[in-house]
Amino acid sequence: MPHTAQQFASDNYAGICPEAWDAMAQANRGHAPAYGDDPWTDAAADAFRRLFDTDCEVFFAFNGTAANSLALAALCQSYHSVICSSSAHVETDECGAPEFFSNGSKLLVAQTADGKLTPQAVRALATSRSDIHFPKTRAVTITQPTETGQVYTIAEIEALSATCRELGLRLHMDGARFANACATLGCSPAAMTWQAGVDVLCFGGTKNGMGVGEAILFFDRALAQDFDYRCKQAGQLASKMRFLAAPWVGLLDSGAWVRNAAHANACAQRVAQRVADLPGIGLMFPVEANAVFLQAPESVLAGLRERGWRFYTFIGGGARFMFAWDADPDRVEALIADIRAAALAEDLVPA
Amino acid sequence: MPHTAQQFASDNYAGICPEAWDAMAQANRGHAPAYGDDPWTDAAADAFRRLFDTDCEVFFAFNGTAANSLALAALCQSYHSVICSSSAHVETDECGAPEFFSNGSKLLVAQTADGKLTPQAVRALATSRSDIHFPKTRAVTITQPTETGQVYTIAEIEALSATCRELGLRLHMDGARFANACATLGCSPAAMTWQAGVDVLCFGGTKNGMGVGEAILFFDRALAQDFDYRCKQAGQLASKMRFLAAPWVGLLDSGAWVRNAAHANACAQRVAQRVADLPGIGLMFPVEANAVFLQAPESVLAGLRERGWRFYTFIGGGARFMFAWDADPDRVEALIADIRAAALAEDLVPA
Amino acid sequence: MPHTAQQFASDNYAGICPEAWDAMAQANRGHAPAYGDDPWTDAAADAFRRLFDTDCEVFFAFNGTAANSLALAALCQSYHSVICSSSAHVETDECGAPEFFSNGSKLLVAQTADGKLTPQAVRALATSRSDIHFPKTRAVTITQPTETGQVYTIAEIEALSATCRELGLRLHMDGARFANACATLGCSPAAMTWQAGVDVLCFGGTKNGMGVGEAILFFDRALAQDFDYRCKQAGQLASKMRFLAAPWVGLLDSGAWVRNAAHANACAQRVAQRVADLPGIGLMFPVEANAVFLQAPESVLAGLRERGWRFYTFIGGGARFMFAWDADPDRVEALIADIRAAALAEDLVPA
Amino acid sequence: MPHTAQQFASDNYAGICPEAWDAMAQANRGHAPAYGDDPWTDAAADAFRRLFDTDCEVFFAFNGTAANSLALAALCQSYHSVICSSSAHVETDECGAPEFFSNGSKLLVAQTADGKLTPQAVRALATSRSDIHFPKTRAVTITQPTETGQVYTIAEIEALSATCRELGLRLHMDGARFANACATLGCSPAAMTWQAGVDVLCFGGTKNGMGVGEAILFFDRALAQDFDYRCKQAGQLASKMRFLAAPWVGLLDSGAWVRNAAHANACAQRVAQRVADLPGIGLMFPVEANAVFLQAPESVLAGLRERGWRFYTFIGGGARFMFAWDADPDRVEALIADIRAAALAEDLVPA
Repeated sequence: MPHTAQQFASDNYAGICPEAWDAMAQANRGHAPAYGDDPWTDAAADAFRRLFDTDCEVFFAFNGTAANSLALAALCQSYHSVICSSSAHVETDECGAPEFFSNGSKLLVAQTADGKLTPQAVRALATSRSDIHFPKTRAVTITQPTETGQVYTIAEIEALSATCRELGLRLHMDGARFANACATLGCSPAAMTWQAGVDVLCFGGTKNGMGVGEAILFFDRALAQDFDYRCKQAGQLASKMRFLAAPWVGLLDSGAWVRNAAHANACAQRVAQRVADLPGIGLMFPVEANAVFLQAPESVLAGLRERGWRFYTFIGGGARFMFAWDADPDRVEALIADIRAAALAEDLVPA
Repeated sequence: MPHTAQQFASDNYAGICPEAWDAMAQANRGHAPAYGDDPWTDAAADAFRRLFDTDCEVFFAFNGTAANSLALAALCQSYHSVICSSSAHVETDECGAPEFFSNGSKLLVAQTADGKLTPQAVRALATSRSDIHFPKTRAVTITQPTETGQVYTIAEIEALSATCRELGLRLHMDGARFANACATLGCSPAAMTWQAGVDVLCFGGTKNGMGVGEAILFFDRALAQDFDYRCKQAGQLASKMRFLAAPWVGLLDSGAWVRNAAHANACAQRVAQRVADLPGIGLMFPVEANAVFLQAPESVLAGLRERGWRFYTFIGGGARFMFAWDADPDRVEALIADIRAAALAEDLVPA
Repeated sequence: MPHTAQQFASDNYAGICPEAWDAMAQANRGHAPAYGDDPWTDAAADAFRRLFDTDCEVFFAFNGTAANSLALAALCQSYHSVICSSSAHVETDECGAPEFFSNGSKLLVAQTADGKLTPQAVRALATSRSDIHFPKTRAVTITQPTETGQVYTIAEIEALSATCRELGLRLHMDGARFANACATLGCSPAAMTWQAGVDVLCFGGTKNGMGVGEAILFFDRALAQDFDYRCKQAGQLASKMRFLAAPWVGLLDSGAWVRNAAHANACAQRVAQRVADLPGIGLMFPVEANAVFLQAPESVLAGLRERGWRFYTFIGGGARFMFAWDADPDRVEALIADIRAAALAEDLVPA
Repeated sequence: MPHTAQQFASDNYAGICPEAWDAMAQANRGHAPAYGDDPWTDAAADAFRRLFDTDCEVFFAFNGTAANSLALAALCQSYHSVICSSSAHVETDECGAPEFFSNGSKLLVAQTADGKLTPQAVRALATSRSDIHFPKTRAVTITQPTETGQVYTIAEIEALSATCRELGLRLHMDGARFANACATLGCSPAAMTWQAGVDVLCFGGTKNGMGVGEAILFFDRALAQDFDYRCKQAGQLASKMRFLAAPWVGLLDSGAWVRNAAHANACAQRVAQRVADLPGIGLMFPVEANAVFLQAPESVLAGLRERGWRFYTFIGGGARFMFAWDADPDRVEALIADIRAAALAEDLVPA
């Protein structure tokens, strides 16, 4: 197959990291019982329980669409609703999956400037209606880090969860890039989740270095009732489960999960720092994880495209660069050089 | 992880075959665009089109639950129904997944002695009701080979599809072990599917030697309208799609798909032939693929369990042995020896 | 509109009884708040609570399809299953409505000779599978009286509910003709429901003399949590609710509910008694409510059709006659006379 | 039951008009076949076909929640989306019913100042995304008259339908108060619907003078394929259908449908004209149907409440008054007098 130079349009462009791969290779020796009744699945669940320092319920799903949608469906009935931010992936990029898995639960979108939900926004939406003509609010979902590359502080999560508790809502965390947030905050996974009041976490494996797979952690075990049936019915139970489980063992036991994330974050930081001084260039959001959103004149973006770079402009018109666990420092430098060149070329042009 | 001796309880106990593994390893070099916009996905789809000698629409899903349920949902509205045999996996072992994906399509179960649907049974069910109080029949699903390890002949498939056409029904084939049927019939995939009137095929990759993944082939391309959206919404679109696609390239291009199946079939044949003469032992169904269903006294089954063998007894109370692509000939011989010993031990006991 | 002579093909052919009509007429005076916030809705709910001698939760739905399906959906998640008899209306005549409202809950059909579920059948189905590949059993539904016109005794209901309790299942009663069963047993509605262990009852109003409307009674109030939202979302909340509620007040407060049923039952009894002695004619099921299922030679049935009678033959090939609250005694006599004539005419013909 | 003075909080507070009532009374004579196989149902469908001067497919549902949701579900698959205005009833007051009936179709909300969709807004939303991560736009729904009491002109509807055709979208009209729009425009029902490019209309009966019932008209008959099954499965098929059909015959054949609407509209006009000159009072939207939205100081609204008036303030904080087919002119005058008194009392108070 043809080889393409690294792009930073998405961290989904990266492959499988060595630790995950090696665990799969080990798991591929011999036979093992199917549907999760195998030692790798037990080991992966235990690795999560150790990492989070709690006896949570752990399930494995194939992708984030399913993991988040199943988790929300477990929290809601069809006539309930879920509060999310206007940039939440579940709202903007899942093709109606949460509504499909829940058979109709509505997402209530809080208009947020930067993609972060606030207790005020949650309260406003949750208390805006209390009649049966509007779906009853039942859960809140936050993405950590956000789709805009920002990280909720522990205090912010605690404030959200306190509001949720007060209003009788459950708190779900979409952690498609959970490891990146951990790497940024330097805190334990426990501190950022159940100790801060999160009820359910979807921990992203794909962007963290796996080929496929996400984990769903219920810190309130009562919420996990019959969740195994839910996964099965929804087409998310792997027959050869060991191949979904083993990479987690590789990632978690080796510490690669947080190393991978830290590397990606560092690349984003480097780009942010090296382009911040450029004329006409701005950072749309604080760079706190592995994403950089550049505000730049269209001519600069065009210049970058001409230089061969691919990137999305779906949030606010800025250019998103997203760094993966294996981002190549040389390519990162090349991107920085090209941004600088494009910006400075533009700057020379008289208005 | 502890190593267990091969069991023949399920062909899901086997791992990933070398051809699939190597393709994944190759696919893991460097970056690639996400969500199927990569060369491996194109190559896999093309490999299917070559193999089936037709320009079909090809989609990839994570598992058979989803592949079959999505395909049936594409054929039906919620108020439609699907005719299947009483041993059909979609009816007996999918936890209501077809009903979930279709939002309520009912499975109409034809009571069949051996797991094979017949034109007569299809006609009887499809014409039994025509009022709006009963879901309108819209599709027929057959499993090839059946859950009882038998293979529909091409003539049988043609007869079924003729009946379907006459009654305005679509014909879906659950090919969880499609390769095994091809190996048995020695026919081309085309002959057994679209040339015989099959509209949609789910081609099983997991049991054929992959770690995860099934393919859905629409021979009538009109039926595939917006199916990519359906997969996405239902949590079946892989972000790093190349890892779902590459193993297919490895399997199909190398011919491993049919070699793997032929080996598994041969193991089943060997067992069948070597135990057929035993007193008190019978074959519940003709052995035409990779499964052997033994009818045996409970004491013989108990003897096998004591000797360490695991097997299911869910269909008709017989013992199912299912051979995988990598079935170890020595273990197969060991199984044969133990069946013989158990049966003969039993035979010595005076009634 | 043309006037047709009474037929006994269905008790849905009858109109609205005077007590229900008069209450509607009264309710039609002046204005009233919408969506159930009106005095008629309160009065109807209170009338049910008095009639059942318990502080149950009461909801109103438009028809039996919705009432039963919503009730079952409230008991189940999509991956659960409901045990019913093979002649259960929810299985045979609701076009997949239970599956639709619940987003996939499967009906597990117990093959019963006469349409009555037994504790043994419930136990057999509920314990047949306990793996996640099969939907977890969660509820049992019985129809009282059955679709075959029989009535469960209180002891039978108690035995079923005891089995349900032991197995962790909920017991739902489809009371499309609930009043007819009450009239037969001569017991209180309480005795036949919550005192016998029924959790949820759908009490049929349409067949009892209303134009439209069923009531759903939750004796375990915890099961009714948010059920008002469920009704609203599913299109079962009437804006001018008083017209759905008032007829209940008319029916219940006047005693018409049980008078109507007793009259219908008496008509069925009369037919049964007057044809029992006929050569070649048999009763397929004991006549315990308002239905008579006649087993008769096809020539006799043809003779009845020739004499202008309409009837269904969907259960077991016999002719069903179903008597409504307003069955005209003269027409009942005419039916009896024609059955006798047809049977005796047949009897005269030498074989 | 206690009698309450007329309020103008909702046109759902009114009862059944004489023409509808009388038709029900006539329909209540004798027996009639069930499930729509009766002369009243035929007559009602024919009355619609005459009124709309086209051979459309006609179905009857119990309420607007179901009628609109079923119609949209018929246009969409679960992964499709429907464009609506931000004040659309389907978005704001149906508790997720459209999502439930369609199993997940997403509503795409165009932010509109006044509740009217425009071709520009439709185009902007429909073309904003074309990737599979977002539900494919499939339909547009407009409410005629709007929830803000305005009426789309025929030219406006034609412009919308032209845009729909160009973009491959279907056009649905929520006509909960369809008759009021007809009365305003003075046009034929045909001119405002199929001749202007509307594909499906939900014609509201409840607000037009019936007790319960809406009609769904498919002008493109191909879209109605199997819609009878859809209604049945979703709990919207009345067994004693004649009582859902007869009132339509009464309303349509007598002309009451448009007389009722014209009276209600006239009441709204009268209020609008008589309060327009008041200091501090404004009309939030042009009064074009049977609603008046008053912008008034909170103290004036409080004054009205003190004088015993009930009204909603859910759209933009103004007071909504909604006049029914039977609005009592004396009570309308009383309302006008109280608004004037409250406004002038307020005006006397020095700031």
